[in-house]
Amino acid sequence: MSSGNRVSREEALDFHKQSRGKIEIFSRTPLDDTRDLSLAYTPGVAEPCKEIHKDVSKVYEYTNKGNMVAVVTDGSAVLGLGDIGPEAGLPVMEGKCQLFKAFAGVDAFPICVSTKDVDDIVDTVVNISPTFGGINLEDISAPRCFEVERKLKEKLNIPVFHDDQHGTAVVVLAALINTLKLTGRQKEDLKVVISGAGAASIAVFKILYSYGVKDIVITDSRGVICPSRSDLNSVKREAAKLTEKSMGYDSEKNTCSVMSLAEAMVGRDVFIGLSKGGIVTKEMVKSMNPEPIIFAMANPDPEILPEDAISAGAGVVATGRSDYPNQINNVLGFPGIFRGALDCMASDINEEMKLAAANALAESVGDRLSKEFIIPNPLDITVAPRVAEAVCRAAIATGVAQNNIKPESVRDRAECLIKKTHELMKKYVENETTAVCNVYLH
Amino acid sequence: MSSGNRVSREEALDFHKQSRGKIEIFSRTPLDDTRDLSLAYTPGVAEPCKEIHKDVSKVYEYTNKGNMVAVVTDGSAVLGLGDIGPEAGLPVMEGKCQLFKAFAGVDAFPICVSTKDVDDIVDTVVNISPTFGGINLEDISAPRCFEVERKLKEKLNIPVFHDDQHGTAVVVLAALINTLKLTGRQKEDLKVVISGAGAASIAVFKILYSYGVKDIVITDSRGVICPSRSDLNSVKREAAKLTEKSMGYDSEKNTCSVMSLAEAMVGRDVFIGLSKGGIVTKEMVKSMNPEPIIFAMANPDPEILPEDAISAGAGVVATGRSDYPNQINNVLGFPGIFRGALDCMASDINEEMKLAAANALAESVGDRLSKEFIIPNPLDITVAPRVAEAVCRAAIATGVAQNNIKPESVRDRAECLIKKTHELMKKYVENETTAVCNVYLH
Repeated sequence: MSSGNRVSREEALDFHKQSRGKIEIFSRTPLDDTRDLSLAYTPGVAEPCKEIHKDVSKVYEYTNKGNMVAVVTDGSAVLGLGDIGPEAGLPVMEGKCQLFKAFAGVDAFPICVSTKDVDDIVDTVVNISPTFGGINLEDISAPRCFEVERKLKEKLNIPVFHDDQHGTAVVVLAALINTLKLTGRQKEDLKVVISGAGAASIAVFKILYSYGVKDIVITDSRGVICPSRSDLNSVKREAAKLTEKSMGYDSEKNTCSVMSLAEAMVGRDVFIGLSKGGIVTKEMVKSMNPEPIIFAMANPDPEILPEDAISAGAGVVATGRSDYPNQINNVLGFPGIFRGALDCMASDINEEMKLAAANALAESVGDRLSKEFIIPNPLDITVAPRVAEAVCRAAIATGVAQNNIKPESVRDRAECLIKKTHELMKKYVENETTAVCNVYLH
Repeated sequence: MSSGNRVSREEALDFHKQSRGKIEIFSRTPLDDTRDLSLAYTPGVAEPCKEIHKDVSKVYEYTNKGNMVAVVTDGSAVLGLGDIGPEAGLPVMEGKCQLFKAFAGVDAFPICVSTKDVDDIVDTVVNISPTFGGINLEDISAPRCFEVERKLKEKLNIPVFHDDQHGTAVVVLAALINTLKLTGRQKEDLKVVISGAGAASIAVFKILYSYGVKDIVITDSRGVICPSRSDLNSVKREAAKLTEKSMGYDSEKNTCSVMSLAEAMVGRDVFIGLSKGGIVTKEMVKSMNPEPIIFAMANPDPEILPEDAISAGAGVVATGRSDYPNQINNVLGFPGIFRGALDCMASDINEEMKLAAANALAESVGDRLSKEFIIPNPLDITVAPRVAEAVCRAAIATGVAQNNIKPESVRDRAECLIKKTHELMKKYVENETTAVCNVYLH
């Protein structure tokens, strides 16, 4: 066994082989005698069926729909592995479902679809939506992911959320909010460069823009996404339009004054990397404004190693890695966001709810705030209940909440669910898990 | 609280409201520290992903696909309630998933689809099939259910099983096998009348026919399904062809010698009812051969009450009800059938596997066999492991098993999984369930 959080290939494979699946379905009510069966199944079950048939909204009262999220992927952009297919994406989706449960008591189920056609994915998800209270899109490649999300949001009145986009954006914004607090900078004055123009980067751009950061340059592997380029998809083109001033775009000459990432970094305050390991040099960091903020989130190798960024003068550094301080990890976002949206029966997860989530996440750091602690530890189970409360409050304020729950109750309930989940988990592990029965498979 | 297995409307509604869903997703591995996260999620999870990408069959080793069944309905024929829609069907599907888990350690998840179009249902299920090791169709109305099943069987190489048809057929056949044993009758000499020509009745007809009972008359609400009738769907027409001799069909005159259920019952040995309460009189029973076998399975009111059937001379009586002896209940079939099919990675659940299940179920009664005990109690948790072993054996014999598991191991594993499930269930209930957290919703 290796120590700490480093796991070898063999350890990871053994771990997965032993459990043969990291989630299972658990029955909440006993089935030991005829009365148990008569309540949970026939004839008793006919009563809630009839009530829901009369008023379909009662499905939230009598079933688990209101706590059940589909984690939907087509396996086309899984981790850094690319298009590995729906079956190969299943271990990640099962892991995601575990995180939903452990960090927010949300029941989540992996739906790995064997089609990459946007309309097929949309139709499939719409067709199975009666079982679910929310849809979490995961690891679907750009630009199809934008279309899938847009169409599902149109067709469904349950929350649809592409975590790779919006989950990342919420956590990055939270880290940035705390960094501004720490360094006394104002968002209106901030000059930002984003490296990467995939789904996550575009979402980060959008949330920063909503938040009030307007001077942003976005780059992809070919340089800044200057409006002069003919190879931009519609999403990049839209972002290019909003950022053309920052790129020094001259519409008459149809050129930008900065073209490469290195040029774009000069005189900027913030670097946000969601791109590729090792592409940022110390010199590039030195060309930025004094004590720049470096979020180098490429995984597993960041755009620049934290020690190099700091030696080049960086003021605050964050990465996606658990072995450095300030880990930007989506698990700080999506569990609480869905917890809040589900409990108030929100019909959508809108911009205001995402901003509220980012603010609550930033605030949860409290007086621990320092250069090496701009964001909570991903394992901090007190985060999601706070985020959930804030999300619910924003849902109510923007009119998308469909029940009358109190935001404080959402937080209390989240804490209760997390506590109960961990208690049971402990018993499960102590008691030998069902994995022991897998010995008979060999 | 009422006593015994009678539950009032209020009790059933309160029960469902308290738990807000009878199943939940449970995480099998802990997520308490960075190492846990690194194994179950990033970076460790990338290793099984890569292995499955190289060889898709490894998805059975590294995920829960091999133990996960989709319980699929469109809500069009739920219990005796008819077409109540996918949301109103969800309480039943959740209950079904509980039964899968409690009686065979099978993880099952409700998929309630919002379309009634055969091809839409088929495409949807095919699209989400990467997550599942088997498909259990449930409460889909005839004749669409036949088409959905046929097309899915063609397109998928995981088992597809319409429980309303084949589950019922297996349990009815098991009860009949034991009744023949008890009464010394031979299947070849048996004259049977089936009341009802829905999905379940047609499946019972088919399995009896496969088993070797050939003299069968089928009736629907309009009388015997005589080939002369112009209102028969293709499935009824096919069955009519195989039974025309029993109905005394004269192809020249295009008439049958018996037309009504009452006429069809005269001189028959077995009545199998899957139709409507109260339609069989004592006189009809008296018109049958001596000591006839009466399976009156309409729910909640059987075609004839057991006490009336017995006073009219019935030799053996079974119903679908838990408050009479000999309850014909599907829970005696599907859990063990799927357990066996999943563990040997069967590509199909074929006729031989169903017959094997019926024989194993009949044999599990052992020397307890009597007129009032022709079939095990539905709560008997020793049944499914026996059925699973027999099903696996038949899968191997017919070449549909895709791994090398030993049938005895399937039984051992089933017993292990059931034991573990019940242990954990007990702790869950003792420990206050997550339902306590629902107090914050009000």
